[in-house]
Amino acid sequence: MKTTSKTSLMTRFELDLPGWIQAELESQPACWPSESDRMALVVQLSGMNFRKKSGGPFAAGVFEKNSGRLVSVGVNRVTENNCSCAHAEVMAISLAQRRLASWDLGAENLPTHQLVVNWRPCIMCYGALIWSGIRSLVVAGDGPQLEAITGFDEGPLGPDWKKGLEARGISVKTGLLQEDAVKVFRDFRDSGALVYNPSRRAP
Amino acid sequence: MKTTSKTSLMTRFELDLPGWIQAELESQPACWPSESDRMALVVQLSGMNFRKKSGGPFAAGVFEKNSGRLVSVGVNRVTENNCSCAHAEVMAISLAQRRLASWDLGAENLPTHQLVVNWRPCIMCYGALIWSGIRSLVVAGDGPQLEAITGFDEGPLGPDWKKGLEARGISVKTGLLQEDAVKVFRDFRDSGALVYNPSRRAP
Repeated sequence: MKTTSKTSLMTRFELDLPGWIQAELESQPACWPSESDRMALVVQLSGMNFRKKSGGPFAAGVFEKNSGRLVSVGVNRVTENNCSCAHAEVMAISLAQRRLASWDLGAENLPTHQLVVNWRPCIMCYGALIWSGIRSLVVAGDGPQLEAITGFDEGPLGPDWKKGLEARGISVKTGLLQEDAVKVFRDFRDSGALVYNPSRRAP
Repeated sequence: MKTTSKTSLMTRFELDLPGWIQAELESQPACWPSESDRMALVVQLSGMNFRKKSGGPFAAGVFEKNSGRLVSVGVNRVTENNCSCAHAEVMAISLAQRRLASWDLGAENLPTHQLVVNWRPCIMCYGALIWSGIRSLVVAGDGPQLEAITGFDEGPLGPDWKKGLEARGISVKTGLLQEDAVKVFRDFRDSGALVYNPSRRAP
């Protein structure tokens, strides 16, 4: 017997940032001229996110590269939003695009946008970055520390990942406040919080 | 002068399927025992999506692998939702996870889930698939036809992409209704519709 799917299929979903983030940002400046300060904000949010039990230890921000204007922030929301795509970079990119009403942050009528993240993006977010129109990536680090310390799997991103970005007009800077970012990963590990990434269960 | 960001930052966003899809699915069965029929549905939706001007020529469905129950569908919504992450696979995976209230479609209390897509995923959706808990991928094709015919960029996914999935317990089947999928890409090209992917503008 064939039954019809009728109204059972969902046709929309919402993703959100945790409630604490609005209060946290209200006391912060709208403009961040220093890239180091931008990273300090992102690393701070990455630590707050797991300590407040609102997601994994990851955060990202979209800034206007030259002025430093903060366009959006994102934190990891996988477990709280029941969405494995809700990584910090996807949240920040999507919120920036919605705010600017543009699916292309590299559109000609917009200033140059920069994504600041507390570690090298996973393979999904690497692709999300490419499609976003972002023209500058700044990460605290890109070595094995994230996976080694936390146990998260970041996916099969090859050693040429920087070249793949640069070939598409995206500049990459790494090593900004790396020790601060690593400390968050250590704190996360020591907290015993959930490593939600399901790929470790593969046979 | 430092100004505070106050209420200007957005903290939530919604993604949705186009209005025509609900009516389209109401007349369809809830259960799809044949993988070929599953692919036929996905290819049909991929063509409808660009012809109805609701997004690019891409669609995906999440099915229970054994029973064939349709859990969710997704179509590309990049331009209409102003979100470069709103690829068909991200939509289908996220809607399935929301419906099942689980960020892990591979959770032990759930049946095995399969993602059916009208071509090999781009590098972002490749990662999204890995993190989703999906255990089976079926694509109509994985060769250069998509990029060659449409002009879309699918990103620097290496030749070992299948191995990367299989190493994580995700089986891959390719070549199902390939010619039907390619025909949609040709129709898309001939329609003169927008190739929204901004990466082609890299220097």
